[in-house]
Amino acid sequence: MTPSPNPTDDFRTLRLLPLGGLGEIGLNMLAVECGGKILIIDCGLMFPEPYMLGIDLVIPDVSALRQRRDDILGILLTHGHEDHIGALPYLLDDLGSPPVYGTPLTLGLLKNRLSERRLDSPARLHTVQLRQPLKLGPFEAEFFRVTHSIVDGAGILLRTPAGNILHTGDFKLDPTPVDGQPTDLGFLAACGSEGIDLLLADSTNVENEGHTLSEKSVGDTLNSLIPACRGKVVVSTFSSNIHRIQQILNAAANAGRRVLVNGRSMIANIAVARELGCLRVADDLFIDLRQYETLSPHRVLLLTTGSQGEPLSALSRMAAGDHKQLEIAPGDTVILSSKFIPGNEKAITSLINQLFRRGADVHYETTSEIHVSGHASKEELKTLHALVRPRHFVPIHGEYRHLVRHARLATEMGLPAANAFVLSNGQTLVLGPDGAHRGEEIETGRIFVDGRGVGDLGSVELRDRRHLANHGVVNVILAINQKTGEILYGPEIFSRGFITEDCGGDYLARAEQEVRELLDQHSLETVGDWEEIRVEVRKCLRRFFNRTLDRRPLILPFILEL
Amino acid sequence: MTPSPNPTDDFRTLRLLPLGGLGEIGLNMLAVECGGKILIIDCGLMFPEPYMLGIDLVIPDVSALRQRRDDILGILLTHGHEDHIGALPYLLDDLGSPPVYGTPLTLGLLKNRLSERRLDSPARLHTVQLRQPLKLGPFEAEFFRVTHSIVDGAGILLRTPAGNILHTGDFKLDPTPVDGQPTDLGFLAACGSEGIDLLLADSTNVENEGHTLSEKSVGDTLNSLIPACRGKVVVSTFSSNIHRIQQILNAAANAGRRVLVNGRSMIANIAVARELGCLRVADDLFIDLRQYETLSPHRVLLLTTGSQGEPLSALSRMAAGDHKQLEIAPGDTVILSSKFIPGNEKAITSLINQLFRRGADVHYETTSEIHVSGHASKEELKTLHALVRPRHFVPIHGEYRHLVRHARLATEMGLPAANAFVLSNGQTLVLGPDGAHRGEEIETGRIFVDGRGVGDLGSVELRDRRHLANHGVVNVILAINQKTGEILYGPEIFSRGFITEDCGGDYLARAEQEVRELLDQHSLETVGDWEEIRVEVRKCLRRFFNRTLDRRPLILPFILEL
Repeated sequence: MTPSPNPTDDFRTLRLLPLGGLGEIGLNMLAVECGGKILIIDCGLMFPEPYMLGIDLVIPDVSALRQRRDDILGILLTHGHEDHIGALPYLLDDLGSPPVYGTPLTLGLLKNRLSERRLDSPARLHTVQLRQPLKLGPFEAEFFRVTHSIVDGAGILLRTPAGNILHTGDFKLDPTPVDGQPTDLGFLAACGSEGIDLLLADSTNVENEGHTLSEKSVGDTLNSLIPACRGKVVVSTFSSNIHRIQQILNAAANAGRRVLVNGRSMIANIAVARELGCLRVADDLFIDLRQYETLSPHRVLLLTTGSQGEPLSALSRMAAGDHKQLEIAPGDTVILSSKFIPGNEKAITSLINQLFRRGADVHYETTSEIHVSGHASKEELKTLHALVRPRHFVPIHGEYRHLVRHARLATEMGLPAANAFVLSNGQTLVLGPDGAHRGEEIETGRIFVDGRGVGDLGSVELRDRRHLANHGVVNVILAINQKTGEILYGPEIFSRGFITEDCGGDYLARAEQEVRELLDQHSLETVGDWEEIRVEVRKCLRRFFNRTLDRRPLILPFILEL
Repeated sequence: MTPSPNPTDDFRTLRLLPLGGLGEIGLNMLAVECGGKILIIDCGLMFPEPYMLGIDLVIPDVSALRQRRDDILGILLTHGHEDHIGALPYLLDDLGSPPVYGTPLTLGLLKNRLSERRLDSPARLHTVQLRQPLKLGPFEAEFFRVTHSIVDGAGILLRTPAGNILHTGDFKLDPTPVDGQPTDLGFLAACGSEGIDLLLADSTNVENEGHTLSEKSVGDTLNSLIPACRGKVVVSTFSSNIHRIQQILNAAANAGRRVLVNGRSMIANIAVARELGCLRVADDLFIDLRQYETLSPHRVLLLTTGSQGEPLSALSRMAAGDHKQLEIAPGDTVILSSKFIPGNEKAITSLINQLFRRGADVHYETTSEIHVSGHASKEELKTLHALVRPRHFVPIHGEYRHLVRHARLATEMGLPAANAFVLSNGQTLVLGPDGAHRGEEIETGRIFVDGRGVGDLGSVELRDRRHLANHGVVNVILAINQKTGEILYGPEIFSRGFITEDCGGDYLARAEQEVRELLDQHSLETVGDWEEIRVEVRKCLRRFFNRTLDRRPLILPFILEL
């Protein structure tokens, strides 16, 4: 464990402590320190990588801040996506429950998450007003509007005695957002004039040429697709994309279809968004299941989650014909108004194939213009850099290659190459009167959440899970009289995930025979070398399985001494 | 097991028996029966789907043909990709070792595969001449040139007393292939004139608009990229794509770089292709490792496999800094001249990020025009249908959605909808004087290959592997005196992939206590209900783990009766 970072009382120096989100998608969390005080921007989770078998969620390791709890003045949230707020319910207490600041929808979504973990009370949530500077110790934070694939997204200007930091959050420059509130370009220009010492900007889409399409273009597609459908229409999208949901509801209303909403998070988020006025919809548009069943198919639209092919989602169960109430019939149309999130491609195309087998027509990202990204493409990033003209730049939110390319883009826009810093998690940056330089490394990492357990699984268990996944398990049981060395029972071998019962019977009997022969060679009378025998038994079986089948199951010998 | 198909002696009737490749990518294998005799077209494998944990390969189940071995006249191979020839080494014997027909490179690659399984002798391999009809019982087979992402690809016209079948193999209409041998459009037109009763055509790229780019366009990109590189150049591509390899070698020669070839299959395939005259290269272009190490970086190019991020490949090891001889240095350029095969995206982007971390510049499919597909896009498929004008159509080679869309495309091109058949594996089609109709279902399936074991693993073992992968394993050991019911040992619990040793100690002790309490409630004196106790122990622990941690490990209770 590296020592926790030493506080600096120097108000002319500012430290950036990246705790997550650099060189990875998700886990976004950044601490900014000035004059011994700390502000945190975002506290996101990560959905597990394929190698993290059985893991539900990943959250950042905040050990580095544990000794500094009392110095944390607050947590600022840029927007309500899980990769920016999702770790907070797990870490708020660890961080000393500081006040949390964000826009209304961001806090609305956070409240749902906190109450799921029964954490309503300790959270002190403060709604911020855009463009209203907020004084927090040595910091002054000013939130400003950015467009993104969620309503109420914000970037943050942090004014400090050591310099001004501009953090874009996740953003794009949508000129025609659904709510008419585009990214505050005027503010960005004003920042450029005021002087930005350090820009932190979203790098997710730096590999995409040109401009990201406006969210409104999806509305156009929906309005041309849905009226032409004859059967039921099922639309699946991300439950946090309130503007997308607004456009789907509008298109349904335009086409004379009433809407059944399905999916726990979809229902919850629509409720929050309506309450906060972020979603405007006539009360009689929504129907319940009973009404849905009585209306004719061309009068209904089912709005649901499950666009990533999640096996337990209603949509997957409908596609498999396993859903009790909802079904897909020939002539129905399914629209996946969503991205194929990397890692989920196989699950999504499998879902699509199943829907085709049920006779549905299916529209999706690769065949219809039914989804747009929420992140700025290359030309938008250039506009950002041109407006802000920062003195230093740290690309954030992206895999390593995105950070490298974004740093290159900044230097192409005129920033001195020495002033662009591709940081990794834990690599601090110090900004002072003489410019910026890399500081000490602090401890960071990933904590796994599996079921109710947080951090009780590590790399050893994941390695074992991979081994078990690929090769199965073979148990060997042997009972020995510890005085005489007489074998009282076994060796008996049983396996799971290794070989079928039909083929395994004779084969595992041969394996038992190998172990018996091994034991015959050993004098079992010498008490005390059981551990050695365990090792020998494992080696013997490993060789046998390797030689005969070229397989490497996890071998668990168990020797009882009675 | 369904009965094996009844032979039909009727020469006016033809049966299509799809054994694999419909509604899936890979496993391509189709039997055609006429007058009691059978020809097989292709015999491919499939790379495992993500849920097939630890499986090396999948091959088709040919049980349906096992009783019909003596009627099989031959196996015709369209081209040398694994998904068309790869199952043959495993199945040739099962199929009665009939003669195998194919073009020179196809057979050359097959020979390598056969000798890997020490099967040189039984295979009777016959090289076919394109456009030379081949008489095989009631069939006449004529191979013709198609362009694809492998050299020496062919389609097949089968003339039979019951009608003509045209099988495209995998194809595209590349107007400027590297070897100057485009798809034989004249032959396709002649087929249209002669009359095709049934067309079977590649559906892989039916969702792609327009035309697939010519292979030569990749050569143009390579020739503009490579001369501009200053450090080492590493190019990774598929080892079977001989034309791509030719273009890479040409670009290397043009840029004054000599080439080190790496990867077992790359070396083997280059040898076969050179021997057959499919690859033309000056002898002094290639260098060995010693020469590679002495030449300056801007004078060498490393041609290697590993473009899919395979963890054990040289490229992955170089990216991780784990390769003993080969390394990536800042300023080097890596070109992945390959597709992101669905399911491999995460592994590939992880490879790319690692290469960036080593300071390399990386070009890949999504950022550079460095790869083209080998399959016909929508407009090419339209050209095919316009030339052939078949009476009936069965889309092949594709997931279910591709087959549906290809059938739609055929009907848009004028085919009566009733004459387009979207078949599934095992769904036979009968073509007779009165047209075509669906016939009986035959047995098909997937056989798993894991190590040296073929078919000794099934869905039960895969389900267990998934369970183990996601939750780990918990073993419970208990020894009981079978006469008195006295507990001689345990209950002792040990786990793998479930909980860390640190957190697990106390926790598993609590679990043991739960089992002890359960056993106290049972009278262990009644001999014979051990199985019941096993079930109760499992239930007890399942409840405990579920209640306390919300986890579901595979629980393996083992009760010894002594």
